[in-house]
Amino acid sequence: MNSRRGNGVTGDGAADIVVGVDLGGTNTSVGIVDEAGKELLHAKFPTHPKESATAFVARLAGVINDLAGRLAPGTSPRGIGIASPAANSLRGTIESPANLGWGTVNLMEMVRMHFTIPVAITNDANAALLGEQTYGAARGMKNVIMLTLGTGLGAGIALDGRLIQGENGAAGEIGHMTVDPGGRVCGCGRRGCVETYVSAQGLRRSVQALLAERLDDSPLRSISFNDLTAESVSRLAEGGDILAMEALTITGAYLGRLIANLAAAFDPEAVVLYGGLVNAGELLLGPARVSFEQHAMNVYRGKMRILESTLNNGEAAVLGAGCLVRELLAGVETA
Amino acid sequence: MNSRRGNGVTGDGAADIVVGVDLGGTNTSVGIVDEAGKELLHAKFPTHPKESATAFVARLAGVINDLAGRLAPGTSPRGIGIASPAANSLRGTIESPANLGWGTVNLMEMVRMHFTIPVAITNDANAALLGEQTYGAARGMKNVIMLTLGTGLGAGIALDGRLIQGENGAAGEIGHMTVDPGGRVCGCGRRGCVETYVSAQGLRRSVQALLAERLDDSPLRSISFNDLTAESVSRLAEGGDILAMEALTITGAYLGRLIANLAAAFDPEAVVLYGGLVNAGELLLGPARVSFEQHAMNVYRGKMRILESTLNNGEAAVLGAGCLVRELLAGVETA
Repeated sequence: MNSRRGNGVTGDGAADIVVGVDLGGTNTSVGIVDEAGKELLHAKFPTHPKESATAFVARLAGVINDLAGRLAPGTSPRGIGIASPAANSLRGTIESPANLGWGTVNLMEMVRMHFTIPVAITNDANAALLGEQTYGAARGMKNVIMLTLGTGLGAGIALDGRLIQGENGAAGEIGHMTVDPGGRVCGCGRRGCVETYVSAQGLRRSVQALLAERLDDSPLRSISFNDLTAESVSRLAEGGDILAMEALTITGAYLGRLIANLAAAFDPEAVVLYGGLVNAGELLLGPARVSFEQHAMNVYRGKMRILESTLNNGEAAVLGAGCLVRELLAGVETA
Repeated sequence: MNSRRGNGVTGDGAADIVVGVDLGGTNTSVGIVDEAGKELLHAKFPTHPKESATAFVARLAGVINDLAGRLAPGTSPRGIGIASPAANSLRGTIESPANLGWGTVNLMEMVRMHFTIPVAITNDANAALLGEQTYGAARGMKNVIMLTLGTGLGAGIALDGRLIQGENGAAGEIGHMTVDPGGRVCGCGRRGCVETYVSAQGLRRSVQALLAERLDDSPLRSISFNDLTAESVSRLAEGGDILAMEALTITGAYLGRLIANLAAAFDPEAVVLYGGLVNAGELLLGPARVSFEQHAMNVYRGKMRILESTLNNGEAAVLGAGCLVRELLAGVETA
């Protein structure tokens, strides 16, 4: 009997699959993930932030059912893990996310109404950290910070091997640490949050500030703010555009100082960078490393590692959401 | 037999006593502490930072033996806990403390050479937090930050009920988070650390800056930098001195912003303030609360508590050092 333990109802190891969802301000990714962290099936669709949460959840359920229907007969996912901005894993809610117009909704309950399998939810940065610790650059690390540089800026933080949650499940909201009192207005209603510099949105704002301050000619002068993307800034910088390079340098300088401050507070082994903005590569990371060395305490200089995620772009949160629901399932099975 | 369990060798509850030491840059306090957190005996002596570590440890051992000799016959301390700046509890060392000229020394080993009972060491801020969690304002709190505002600025941080240590035992060095890039030179060799504003030393520097900027008459103009103490600034501010009040307001504003940033990163239930500078009372805490409300995320405004230590001045670290060695003894007895 012992030799069969853990193989589950189907008696087939391949059946140990879960659904991971990465709910983003722009797009939502859904993956059917096996235990080795391989995405067997994947779908991506626009989030439509102006749509109601109910309508969004109905579309999400449709996508999950569609993917699950494509699995081998007799095989079905054991649970659904969801990574979302502003998610509170203790309550199952997402709470007034800056980039979605839903206010506070209990997303976990709303998704549960469509399924009979367990559903778990966590902050997107925490999910990405879980994915990175299980399958990526942070494997085996007990003290590590994952910075997610997307539309906004978040962090998943593990200390002594455990994800920190805080009193209200809101630890790691480092994007809203004030770095420039009285500075740029933030989506959270205050000013000078580090997210207003270190994020895709922050990069776009730095471009506008440079267009105002400087006289250099640049293709950036022909792109409206709404049409400007972090990718286009990176591409122009790679081509030698001075203003695009400068905007990435500004972003990197704030990023390096932030990492130095987080090092002083948390003493991590490494900081792992994840998210679309990291695709800018050395044009961002070079200035970030210079700024880190300048602002970090002596004990961290040249020692604490700044790493890039080794998972495919956008995959860490999907995989991590899968890990999350696996943990939930393991807890249920133990109890 | 069960009714006598835990009473120990002497059959007397009063025998469960330990030594707590708070090694400061200016003075060192030693207490003989019972299990209820009562200091049975206490001594305080100047640290003499220019003396060698060996000579200091010999003096410390003399003081401990003197206090222990005054205990009732047959009663003796079970262990010695030491709270020190820049202490590394994992290694037993204190590592180039900014306010002592010892470089890196293994203080735990040095003290052990004088005694046969167990010795434990930890960072002073961590010890103060332990004392406050066991006997003071942070009793029962699982997510709490203790800020120590003395000559310098440190923090002890508990998350999910456990003190965070970090990869190298250096977590909580929040005094060296950069708050003002290119700003005031810090004892750590860099510029703009928050400790250069939020500490007794920072307050004295803010007074000098105001004497340079402003023309207001003030008794502060008759006191040299070396003769100026945080206490004298507080006393003048209480008497209505504009520059002294302004210096405390500046300090409080930086303190409030720091607390807001720590709230975003850690999501604590409360931040407890401890150390000589806190004696300035509302002249410091008023501006700190205003600044906190201004810079904190909505979820923390009016909710996260900013508390003053409820232990006697200087007692938290002595009591916490006692708790530390009790934990060590409990571990030894369990193992």
